[in-house]
Amino acid sequence: MLQDLFHVVLVEPRYDGNVGAVARVMKNFGFRNLALVNPPPLGAEARKASMHGRDIMEAARVYSSFEELAGAYDFLVGTSAKLSGDANTLRTPVYPEGLLKASGSRGRVAILFGREDVGLLNGELEQCDMQVTIPANPEYPTLNLSHSVAVLLYELSKERNKRTSGKKLKPLSLVEKKYMLRFYDELVEASYKWGFEKRLAKRTFRAIVGRAFICGREAKTMMGVFRNALKKRAGD
Amino acid sequence: MLQDLFHVVLVEPRYDGNVGAVARVMKNFGFRNLALVNPPPLGAEARKASMHGRDIMEAARVYSSFEELAGAYDFLVGTSAKLSGDANTLRTPVYPEGLLKASGSRGRVAILFGREDVGLLNGELEQCDMQVTIPANPEYPTLNLSHSVAVLLYELSKERNKRTSGKKLKPLSLVEKKYMLRFYDELVEASYKWGFEKRLAKRTFRAIVGRAFICGREAKTMMGVFRNALKKRAGD
Repeated sequence: MLQDLFHVVLVEPRYDGNVGAVARVMKNFGFRNLALVNPPPLGAEARKASMHGRDIMEAARVYSSFEELAGAYDFLVGTSAKLSGDANTLRTPVYPEGLLKASGSRGRVAILFGREDVGLLNGELEQCDMQVTIPANPEYPTLNLSHSVAVLLYELSKERNKRTSGKKLKPLSLVEKKYMLRFYDELVEASYKWGFEKRLAKRTFRAIVGRAFICGREAKTMMGVFRNALKKRAGD
Repeated sequence: MLQDLFHVVLVEPRYDGNVGAVARVMKNFGFRNLALVNPPPLGAEARKASMHGRDIMEAARVYSSFEELAGAYDFLVGTSAKLSGDANTLRTPVYPEGLLKASGSRGRVAILFGREDVGLLNGELEQCDMQVTIPANPEYPTLNLSHSVAVLLYELSKERNKRTSGKKLKPLSLVEKKYMLRFYDELVEASYKWGFEKRLAKRTFRAIVGRAFICGREAKTMMGVFRNALKKRAGD
């Protein structure tokens, strides 16, 4: 599973509140595995920020050096706010959408986030198999640590969630659509004299429905509106 | 420019640190306009979190009520962590990628973010033209306030480059929208007996219109349908 393959690694974070905030957003996007290199003591700020992600924070693996961490993973992704402006070819990053490709690697993937002030060091970036950057305002591209994590995990889990959460919205069935349009058409037929007006009215509503991706419940409600408008008239 | 069209609005945020964090991430993605409804005093925490986004925070417009804010914008986007699981048809949200479509509306767009604990209230969501949700872990979908802002602004500024020209569709003006909804509401009033049915019928059509981004011509056509349905009846 994608969420098990990708681990989030904070390299020498300075503020424990950030560690908590990262744990929370990992939980939000269904990621579980957090690792920390030389973290600060995790105190009240960290607990407060972690919210329901506290279990993730408490289960985090702690490494005492970058080398130790690097040895524990099969594929390292470095994150950086800087676009390739220097001669260092390693600084040719992919955008977040490209991150998913790292899942093609064998074994465990670590996404490394650097220090709040200086990020990842050049020596660390050089050990990475891939570099990713979040496209941002060139005047101020440095995101807050947990914001960077939020954006990358959102992007990674996007496709998967699209599929699963789509199940919750009961989509418009063909039968519901047919009935809704039938009652709408009857109302149009009863309200207009000329064929061209009727055709335009029918076409327009179909276009709106097509773009709105309405659900079954909405279709029933609209059907009710048209049916009632017709019935009332018949009864008048 | 996209970044000028979309304003970020925090509705009754409780922690000033969150306001600062939001201002920072706005700067990161090139957004400028922040509005606050009943914010807490912005103190040291806010300044610390805002970093280079402090100018945005200090230039924020402050509103004393939701109604005052709602009156200042042409198109309101509500954000919510909940997927439509209840009977409220308004809770049929679009995903962040769909947010860009709101730029098709005329005038200024406000993206509303609710309180840290309870989000936006139902009465507030009902006034929104569109609802957006970030697909997340169903077990814990509630993102930290500034994380939600980060993800939506990231997605908006990313999609900007892919933006297809919607220039050919003349967007719905506020007047056209008002008239269309007025005739629809009259039809609903004439067709239903019970208040709850009327409310559901009105709310449902507004949700569909909000998601479909209808153009002025379509609004006129639909207005014609409702007006004719009413008139015919009166003349019967």
